[in-house]
Amino acid sequence: MSYGDLLAPPPSYADSVMYAQPEIQPARDVGANAVGGTTTVYLDGDDGAGDEETLQIWVSDPKIEADTSAALVGKRVTHYKITTRTTIPSYIHKEVVVWRRFRDFVALDARLSALHRGYFIPPRPEKTVVSSTGDNFIAERAIQLQHYLNRIASHSKLRLGDPLRIFLTHQDLASSLDWFNMTAGRVITTIPSDLPSSPETPQRPPIAVASPGQPRDFGRFFKELRQTVVQSTAVSAVGGVLGLDTPKPKVMEEDAAFLVEKDRVVRMENELSGMSSKATKLLTLQQKFGEAVGEFGLECLKFAKIQEEEGTRLGKYSENGLECMTAANEMRKAGNTSIKVSRVSRAATAQTAQSLEPLHDYLKIMPSVRRSISDRNESLLTLQTMLAEADRLEARIAKLTPDFTKMKKVEDLKLELDATRATGEQAKVDYKIIQDRHREEFARLEKERVAQFHAMLLNYSRVQVANAERSLSLWRGLAEEFGASADEWRTPEPEKSGEADETTL
Amino acid sequence: MSYGDLLAPPPSYADSVMYAQPEIQPARDVGANAVGGTTTVYLDGDDGAGDEETLQIWVSDPKIEADTSAALVGKRVTHYKITTRTTIPSYIHKEVVVWRRFRDFVALDARLSALHRGYFIPPRPEKTVVSSTGDNFIAERAIQLQHYLNRIASHSKLRLGDPLRIFLTHQDLASSLDWFNMTAGRVITTIPSDLPSSPETPQRPPIAVASPGQPRDFGRFFKELRQTVVQSTAVSAVGGVLGLDTPKPKVMEEDAAFLVEKDRVVRMENELSGMSSKATKLLTLQQKFGEAVGEFGLECLKFAKIQEEEGTRLGKYSENGLECMTAANEMRKAGNTSIKVSRVSRAATAQTAQSLEPLHDYLKIMPSVRRSISDRNESLLTLQTMLAEADRLEARIAKLTPDFTKMKKVEDLKLELDATRATGEQAKVDYKIIQDRHREEFARLEKERVAQFHAMLLNYSRVQVANAERSLSLWRGLAEEFGASADEWRTPEPEKSGEADETTL
Repeated sequence: MSYGDLLAPPPSYADSVMYAQPEIQPARDVGANAVGGTTTVYLDGDDGAGDEETLQIWVSDPKIEADTSAALVGKRVTHYKITTRTTIPSYIHKEVVVWRRFRDFVALDARLSALHRGYFIPPRPEKTVVSSTGDNFIAERAIQLQHYLNRIASHSKLRLGDPLRIFLTHQDLASSLDWFNMTAGRVITTIPSDLPSSPETPQRPPIAVASPGQPRDFGRFFKELRQTVVQSTAVSAVGGVLGLDTPKPKVMEEDAAFLVEKDRVVRMENELSGMSSKATKLLTLQQKFGEAVGEFGLECLKFAKIQEEEGTRLGKYSENGLECMTAANEMRKAGNTSIKVSRVSRAATAQTAQSLEPLHDYLKIMPSVRRSISDRNESLLTLQTMLAEADRLEARIAKLTPDFTKMKKVEDLKLELDATRATGEQAKVDYKIIQDRHREEFARLEKERVAQFHAMLLNYSRVQVANAERSLSLWRGLAEEFGASADEWRTPEPEKSGEADETTL
Repeated sequence: MSYGDLLAPPPSYADSVMYAQPEIQPARDVGANAVGGTTTVYLDGDDGAGDEETLQIWVSDPKIEADTSAALVGKRVTHYKITTRTTIPSYIHKEVVVWRRFRDFVALDARLSALHRGYFIPPRPEKTVVSSTGDNFIAERAIQLQHYLNRIASHSKLRLGDPLRIFLTHQDLASSLDWFNMTAGRVITTIPSDLPSSPETPQRPPIAVASPGQPRDFGRFFKELRQTVVQSTAVSAVGGVLGLDTPKPKVMEEDAAFLVEKDRVVRMENELSGMSSKATKLLTLQQKFGEAVGEFGLECLKFAKIQEEEGTRLGKYSENGLECMTAANEMRKAGNTSIKVSRVSRAATAQTAQSLEPLHDYLKIMPSVRRSISDRNESLLTLQTMLAEADRLEARIAKLTPDFTKMKKVEDLKLELDATRATGEQAKVDYKIIQDRHREEFARLEKERVAQFHAMLLNYSRVQVANAERSLSLWRGLAEEFGASADEWRTPEPEKSGEADETTL
């Protein structure tokens, strides 16, 4: 069972409308992410220039229409209204509305990944296996999409990039050439401010450099594979024995801070996965427990009814009849209270799930972090391969040059050498860009996590307080009806979880 | 999972001794049933003569000794100390101590059933399949045995009977002839006060009248079987067609009050079984939920540790290091609070189970009620059979008497007729006794149930109040540590479960 399931509205008991309003409303805006409501503002990095500028996005009014682009007649598609308000200068209009379908979000994600390599791109909502047009599904998806866009908008760099701006403002994406071009070839250098040394950027080399996910140049692929094998320590160790050429790569990952961060993020993800699975277990059991309280309450009501019939049979004015009626009444009160507590508990479960979302959010960005790390490794590998290849070509050329009969061959090799060097330069630039971006991204990720986890723990405890308060008041009411004195109740004093209470692991 | 399992002490987290004391102690003496503690006093019927007199019993000091009575060398047996304090005149000593083993309790139960037919005998603790001498098992059994004896002692009639008195006071049961005789033959009339017409009680008839559970007189058995078949309405309906003789039985169960009570008890048992299974589900899930909260807390502590290491690495005086330490600290507080809440919740689970015991107790006496109803039916069937048989014999005798050659046969038949009549008279007396006893027993059972259920609901809600209070105080403390203001908390007002809230089934 996922958090999402637990966030679904609990089924109502016996169609009662008593508690149509949510029972617990913590002071903070938990649940403010709802369609059309105020948006959650994510923590911006504090190192950018445009952070004073606001960028708020709402996803609303899902509309199901016939899909005119599909060959299949009768296929239906949902369009969402995207409303953007911003003070960012590159946006011509300060408020703009566009309509987008899910396919457009997939395209946005592809463009973000292509143009912003090295940044940790927020994960977009998953595609569904079953195409769903159910009301609940669409409402839930609108919330997810709004959350997604605002996460991008809260990223100090991504918010200023072309993909987001065009997505939010262009009325007809299909007709946007800029939008179309973004995935054609390598466009990592679109945001020039990120390039420390843009004058050095070489012209596009004659060998096609494919961006990740596009058809590869297989020649380079095999060269890189060989490089990978060469770098493997095991192969290096036995390389001499096997007669393999094992040159030491010319450039190594020597960014110690990066290696530490990488290691820390992996360990953290590992630990948070464990925490997430325990949280899911906790929520599942809280939900089941709440249901069990409700079921017990219903049994009390059923029993009360039997007693009531018995009381009626014995007669209102007989001693036994009266006793029976009183007993029935008490049982019914116990039943009603149990059912109310059950509802409070189920509301608390949904809100607890919501309060723990940052845990989930952090884990969901991890694939993006891993992809970014692998992009970095790939750039480095390409750089290493090209340098080794250039050495090899230079040696070949030096060997063949004295031989005039090989002049044509030498010319060809020189052209190949140029291409190899150009590719190497490009990889070097890529690597540098990713390295710089990583330096700020890892810091930003951790800063954001710390702040969000603080908010999470505060929200979590507030939800528990509200739940306990509500339950307490229900049970006290019941106990007093049964003859307990209000004087029994002590005023709860908050207990500090001081150092003395520390639990040893 | 049974209530008993849930009452077992919860395993301690991380060997912590923080909460060696139970966390929730409701105002009433829930759990006062402990060995050596004060005993729970059950509700006495208010119609008896001896109800002013006290009879309190404690079971304590279980001692494991070699079983000298067993052929098997090395077999060990547990003896329990039974302390009785009473003001009942038939007890010579006002305080007396005896030692009993489980086998003696089984014998007591057999004697109570034999001598007090028609009464609802409290159920004795079950035998165990595995012979257990574990400390936990013995302590638990001592509690059960004490509970059992006090339930008998609280019954207005059983408390005055010989079986209980001899059991509680005779130093050596094996040497008591009275004790031995109690199971030999029918001894239902031992308490003369219960017999409305004791002068009519006939002498023991020559045909052995077996008490239930003893070898039967098979002649009577088959006659009764025939009577049962005859009474079956289906057979009655087609009897004429098949040429069967279907005389209407001379005595029918016409006690309308009894039939109503019987029906009510059956329906109530049915409903309470459902409630009991929901209660068990509730307790099981509450226990699991509590454990899940604890597990989540442990994950928080583990994560806090990772963060702390990170903070140490970054250094105490760096901004990042400080932030990291703060985050670790918050996470640890959340973990500690979760673990404490988990303990509170598990204590609450055990106490909830205890508070719901009357539900269980009521269901446990049901086999006794059913047995008693079947005793009544059996007496009635015997009476009907004997009356029909007497008619048949009389007709036979009337037919044979004119024939002098059959004089010997007629004499034999007359002897058989006498025996049949005597058995019938005995059955009539039995039936009358059971009928009278039932009249008071059903009333007593219901009165006791109503009172115990009232106490149960009060205890139940008190336990929930205490649990919610404790949790509330823990969560408030945590939220305040995270920056929530104490002003946020509303003072819980007890909510009345008024009529307006009634839930439709």
